[in-house]
Amino acid sequence: MKRVGTLALAVAACVLAAAPTFAAEKKVRWNMAMTWNSTLTPFVNAPLQVAKMVSDMTGGNFVIKVDGAEKHKAPLEILDMVKGGQFEMGHSASYYWKGKDATTAIFTTVPFGMNADEQNAWLYYGGGMALMQKCYDKFDVYAFPGGNTGVQMGGWFRKEIKSLDDLKGLKMRIPSVAGEVFAKLGVNVTNIAPGELYTSLDRGTIDALEWVGPGMDIKMGFHKIAPFYYAGWHEPATDLQFLINKKAFDSLPPEYQAALKTAIKAATADMHFENFAMSAEAWSTMKTEFPNIKVMTFPEPVLAAMKKATDEVLGEYAAKDPFFKEVLDSQMAFMKKARQWTKMSEQYYLQESEKVVK
Amino acid sequence: MKRVGTLALAVAACVLAAAPTFAAEKKVRWNMAMTWNSTLTPFVNAPLQVAKMVSDMTGGNFVIKVDGAEKHKAPLEILDMVKGGQFEMGHSASYYWKGKDATTAIFTTVPFGMNADEQNAWLYYGGGMALMQKCYDKFDVYAFPGGNTGVQMGGWFRKEIKSLDDLKGLKMRIPSVAGEVFAKLGVNVTNIAPGELYTSLDRGTIDALEWVGPGMDIKMGFHKIAPFYYAGWHEPATDLQFLINKKAFDSLPPEYQAALKTAIKAATADMHFENFAMSAEAWSTMKTEFPNIKVMTFPEPVLAAMKKATDEVLGEYAAKDPFFKEVLDSQMAFMKKARQWTKMSEQYYLQESEKVVK
Repeated sequence: MKRVGTLALAVAACVLAAAPTFAAEKKVRWNMAMTWNSTLTPFVNAPLQVAKMVSDMTGGNFVIKVDGAEKHKAPLEILDMVKGGQFEMGHSASYYWKGKDATTAIFTTVPFGMNADEQNAWLYYGGGMALMQKCYDKFDVYAFPGGNTGVQMGGWFRKEIKSLDDLKGLKMRIPSVAGEVFAKLGVNVTNIAPGELYTSLDRGTIDALEWVGPGMDIKMGFHKIAPFYYAGWHEPATDLQFLINKKAFDSLPPEYQAALKTAIKAATADMHFENFAMSAEAWSTMKTEFPNIKVMTFPEPVLAAMKKATDEVLGEYAAKDPFFKEVLDSQMAFMKKARQWTKMSEQYYLQESEKVVK
Repeated sequence: MKRVGTLALAVAACVLAAAPTFAAEKKVRWNMAMTWNSTLTPFVNAPLQVAKMVSDMTGGNFVIKVDGAEKHKAPLEILDMVKGGQFEMGHSASYYWKGKDATTAIFTTVPFGMNADEQNAWLYYGGGMALMQKCYDKFDVYAFPGGNTGVQMGGWFRKEIKSLDDLKGLKMRIPSVAGEVFAKLGVNVTNIAPGELYTSLDRGTIDALEWVGPGMDIKMGFHKIAPFYYAGWHEPATDLQFLINKKAFDSLPPEYQAALKTAIKAATADMHFENFAMSAEAWSTMKTEFPNIKVMTFPEPVLAAMKKATDEVLGEYAAKDPFFKEVLDSQMAFMKKARQWTKMSEQYYLQESEKVVK
């Protein structure tokens, strides 16, 4: 009995000694669902990087398995699956939940809204993230920025858009607020999961679609069917999001919570860099590799009509939902300040250096 | 003896059980030296955030103490102190070591060079970070991007610059390549540590200086003495750097290495956001709060002369240093591609939306 007693004492001492660091040794296995198929770079690289960083930082103790849409088959149900706990985490775009709650949409981007610098400054230093969390509290999930694409292209069209008449009756995949704007202008608007875009265009289910930018669009092959490629207006700084089940996050040791949040911030910034690099590369070779692509800008009367319809759509939501109004007002007030600085810094530099850089 | 033997056995078992996780429990105490005084936000927030993130992720086991220039008194000797091991880490701007190795300068920024999006894409996805590491290998330190300011303002002048004649004989604080460009145009150029800028201007040691942008400049008070505030040309995307003593980094457990690298990436992105937010805020209130500030742009002949002198300065370094040429060529080739995409995305969006956003 003495021996056993001693052993028990020693083991108790051992457990005590180990106790302060137990948190950092806890084995945690999570699953993360993405809206995207696993091959869709650079979007998927943000979640994959988060998983790798978290594993590296915890000596392989906190493992996040990342499932693409080809596996879980529910690309546009990420929020429900994270809320319900089938997946501890998700990676998607907030505006896919506009049907549940319109305010979610404007954390992604709004037509004629902020660019990426402005939106990041608003999110991290202008109260945006607190508002986003307030919005997602009702779903019992934590929401974090998950990668910004910068200015997206306006989409691929089979035919040139010469006037507002050319929009009438057009069948187009364009999500969220921009979709409602086009609907006001007579477009038959639909949303389609990313994995089914090419097939829908090929089969004539749609006549036009918007996706992201040259880095992601060209390898999808849209230009083979719809070669008119329009400049951006509707998604000037599309933000993806990481969503995390609150109960799952709150039960993590504090070290793992810190590791996960830090990894999310690092991977989120990185996706913006990679997307820009991919688009720069694709754009620079597009004219020679794909000479059939016709780069277009919308005529000014069409742009003006889009702006007017945007104000109407946003105004209607704001009139019936005080929280939508609060978030929109916060964005617009920040943008008004920030745009002046954008003009003085980035825009002025690009214009002036163009005059002297040959 | 039996008891002691049992205890020893049990303790051995305890040590064995803890062994695989020892790495994550190792107590590490580092010191980091900054070029900046401790109050200089947002620059200091990048190192302070790194320290906090690393501590949080390791349960307080990996602690980095951050010293401002007011303490170590050697703001422009960070590289030497990190190389020599007096500090395991430093936070500074690479172009302060141009005197040791000209190539270090162009990892910060070059006049008429890339903007922040372009430079980040080059660093992380265009081979830039590998070249930067190759450059810093000779100092036995690891180098990481440490925060980008975006387009900096061209600086504060006592008098208006109406022509190239007004630059001749002017005493100005302006570092690095831009300083050499101004020297070619007849300016008496000097570099002065950040903490001594206001005093130097006040005492007439200098007639003009450049610092960063409205978010950081206005609280320094330069406008009281030199109210002509010029638009940017010389530092379109100034990158700060984290420098780490190689031996110190290599001796860290792999979990801590991963935590440190992830924290650096997250804090680096964050500093860009905070700096933009600060500048947007300061710019929006500047006209009413400081009506004596005169916002100016350099006349086109002056800008053209700056561009010509920039090409000469960079060309001279490239002619005598093959590695300088390799890095410069890499930057210029990337910028050529990337600028086309910048024009199609950011620049086009800003121009066009201006027409319809009232």
